[in-house]
Amino acid sequence: MAQRLFSVGLARHFSRPSNPQLSFPCLEKLEQRSQSLVENGPEPAYAKITEDKVDIFRSTDPIFLDYGGYLPQFQVAYETWGTLDASRSNAVLLQTGLSASSHAHSTAKNPARGWWEDFIGPGKYLDTDKYFVICTNVIGGCFGSTGPSSVDPSDGQVYATRFPIISISDMVRAQHRLVKQHFKIDRLHAVMGSSMGGMQCLAYAHEFTDEVAKVVSISGCARSHPYSIAMRHCQRQVLMTDPNWNKGFYYGSLPPHTGMKLAREIATITYRSGPEWESRFGVERADPSKQPALCPDFLIETYLDHAGEKWCLEYDPNSFLYISKAMDLFDMSLSARAKAARSRRQTEARYNGEYVPDSELEYRPVGQCSFDEPMRENKRTRRMTPEEAAEDLKRGLATLAAKDVLVIGVESDILFPAWQQREMADLLRQGARERGGDGSNIRHVELSKEDSLYGHDTFLLALDHIGVPVSDFLEN
Amino acid sequence: MAQRLFSVGLARHFSRPSNPQLSFPCLEKLEQRSQSLVENGPEPAYAKITEDKVDIFRSTDPIFLDYGGYLPQFQVAYETWGTLDASRSNAVLLQTGLSASSHAHSTAKNPARGWWEDFIGPGKYLDTDKYFVICTNVIGGCFGSTGPSSVDPSDGQVYATRFPIISISDMVRAQHRLVKQHFKIDRLHAVMGSSMGGMQCLAYAHEFTDEVAKVVSISGCARSHPYSIAMRHCQRQVLMTDPNWNKGFYYGSLPPHTGMKLAREIATITYRSGPEWESRFGVERADPSKQPALCPDFLIETYLDHAGEKWCLEYDPNSFLYISKAMDLFDMSLSARAKAARSRRQTEARYNGEYVPDSELEYRPVGQCSFDEPMRENKRTRRMTPEEAAEDLKRGLATLAAKDVLVIGVESDILFPAWQQREMADLLRQGARERGGDGSNIRHVELSKEDSLYGHDTFLLALDHIGVPVSDFLEN
Repeated sequence: MAQRLFSVGLARHFSRPSNPQLSFPCLEKLEQRSQSLVENGPEPAYAKITEDKVDIFRSTDPIFLDYGGYLPQFQVAYETWGTLDASRSNAVLLQTGLSASSHAHSTAKNPARGWWEDFIGPGKYLDTDKYFVICTNVIGGCFGSTGPSSVDPSDGQVYATRFPIISISDMVRAQHRLVKQHFKIDRLHAVMGSSMGGMQCLAYAHEFTDEVAKVVSISGCARSHPYSIAMRHCQRQVLMTDPNWNKGFYYGSLPPHTGMKLAREIATITYRSGPEWESRFGVERADPSKQPALCPDFLIETYLDHAGEKWCLEYDPNSFLYISKAMDLFDMSLSARAKAARSRRQTEARYNGEYVPDSELEYRPVGQCSFDEPMRENKRTRRMTPEEAAEDLKRGLATLAAKDVLVIGVESDILFPAWQQREMADLLRQGARERGGDGSNIRHVELSKEDSLYGHDTFLLALDHIGVPVSDFLEN
Repeated sequence: MAQRLFSVGLARHFSRPSNPQLSFPCLEKLEQRSQSLVENGPEPAYAKITEDKVDIFRSTDPIFLDYGGYLPQFQVAYETWGTLDASRSNAVLLQTGLSASSHAHSTAKNPARGWWEDFIGPGKYLDTDKYFVICTNVIGGCFGSTGPSSVDPSDGQVYATRFPIISISDMVRAQHRLVKQHFKIDRLHAVMGSSMGGMQCLAYAHEFTDEVAKVVSISGCARSHPYSIAMRHCQRQVLMTDPNWNKGFYYGSLPPHTGMKLAREIATITYRSGPEWESRFGVERADPSKQPALCPDFLIETYLDHAGEKWCLEYDPNSFLYISKAMDLFDMSLSARAKAARSRRQTEARYNGEYVPDSELEYRPVGQCSFDEPMRENKRTRRMTPEEAAEDLKRGLATLAAKDVLVIGVESDILFPAWQQREMADLLRQGARERGGDGSNIRHVELSKEDSLYGHDTFLLALDHIGVPVSDFLEN
């Protein structure tokens, strides 16, 4: 090709190109950031989360995980608001989305505004005059709980990508130790959360059915769907192909800030919605008097660029990968939950020195990334029909069907689309009826586009629309 | 951070980690491809498109472009099927999507199947017994037409990113020279296209209103929308941050195949649809007996990975950037079209030695990538209200409102969503009525989810649903 391009004999020495070379300030900015990180050292905010900011629960017992791994010991960072009553019956476990810390609200230790500051507090929707609110950083995270940036006590090295694959149900079993062992709470008034938190609350109520009274799942789902997996796949791929990611071993050196920025930009597309952007940015360019450019140029591009820029050092890249994967894997189906339980028992048995032959393991312990031969179109398709998969999901959700459950969905959400919350509510009601109930214990609220154009981020932005049904449900 | 992580005093020499290191075959595969390209040389398929495969039209007159650049001369690769009748009135100009070549159907020169092989031919929906079908490779492309991989005659160097920013209307003005100068066609029976082709047909009919009888816009739009720009922005960013992209100067060395692969994976998400994937892949893993992995693992991931892998050397990365940008910039609004026309006249005047002061230019000729200060939330928002923008678009489309126009949309399309074709048809009908017509010259067909779950790619896959209304419209 080079030959074809350079040997055409048209070269005119000392002549100028027809048009000027485009310039790429967006790339220069990335280089400047790399340079500054090399010179000043990476000092990510999350690395500073210690006990002067959050409380830490330590478990010295191992935790066995859904997909064949284990943590010999672990810690969970948490924060609380309100007061646990004498009967220990007013606790609400608040569960977080992918990138959130336990800092849902300011505390005495950490007066910075929390991510749900205006939702929580005396007289607020999550009323701390009534409830004792507990929020944790999930395991796998980087805000004080054990995750890939933690040290593996087995060999004294940072886990990095020797951290085991974790699941949403692993996260809630870690939370349960805090609730049960530390707070001695036998029954939570409610588990609740948005986004990945809306997955966790289902998992918690499934794993510890008798220890939960109410469940609030906001913009969550009972099982991921292919579009959401596809979008997270792309985020993981752009991060993992950043040379600075270095297969997860970047601690103490230049972090993959470019990959993180790009991943966040893709994620941001899934968090907001087209109609909101249409009314806010339209297709206008940031500076219409300039020639268009290949670097960010439209208002929507500068918005995404800024979102990525702001976030790229706020979160541990490996935590992002593991937790993103846990969301993909989330599946409340009976078959998935049963397989996970069998797998955990096998790992525990081996840990205790029992003999479990490799051939009997639920997951072949290859410790390997499965990449198969390129899939041939229409050859490798699902094994279970959609109808069978729906039945499987209904049976998995059956443990929750007798509980009071509030399901909230948002029409403008493209990541956890409204059909997922409708499906969840429908399957729960079917389950309730099969147990002889009338299904009225399952409440479903869907915010229309008139209520919110904020898409998946609605729970952070349209507090009143979320808060009114939530506070009503928690009290009645 | 490194200190915090490595000095905790837990190191136990000669001990093993709790869990095995994950492996990353997807990254190893990328490295192998790089290695193979270095050893065997990059030989992209598009570099082999020459006159033994396609016909070439050469224009030695310059073309002045919408955004302030120009090409001193250019060539357009094209292919034809059927026979031009004596009155030169049966020609149909078929316009392509972003990544397509002129090879819509096999030819004597090139017997390989075309991208619309089963749609075109004697007795087919685009009937070559009746019509003389012309299909070109767009300028900016890499399949034989002048693009960033071509040599700039001004200095004998490959353009690379000294290629000027181009627009959809620039593409059609290049096509027009072929139609008018080479084929001496005064009036096309129809202009038609899908996706970016559905943009081009509107632009062609706008620029050369009296030279077009019918317009068929399939899965196109009259103006891009923020979600589509956001998704293309991410594709461009992942490509431009691939170190091998090298600001566009990779010709003759290792091409940015990783960036191209990632860009294609993101693009593929926009081309297909969630419901199709739900029924085809569900959330099943490629090999459920293996532990989950951070590399592709779910069926949907192996599908995307394969789509990226297959394409990453099929297309010139710079062509991808410029054409992707042209799609973002597409805007049939009257104000946008008028500004472009003024800009072209200015460039032409300067080329002819006339004095045009910098201060009067439509676009400041910075030749620079405009990147502004980070946008503050809610500060930098659109200048024109959505209502004003709709009125502007209606006025821009007015030139087409008296023509026979067929607009086809697909409900499952997320990239060019069905509201865009409804909007286009509505605005055209309003324009027709304002001119005293009844609007019946504007036909609109929308394929429901029952008709097609293939999303934006429907025109490649559900030929009957597209072909029946198209052939009827072309004939009647």
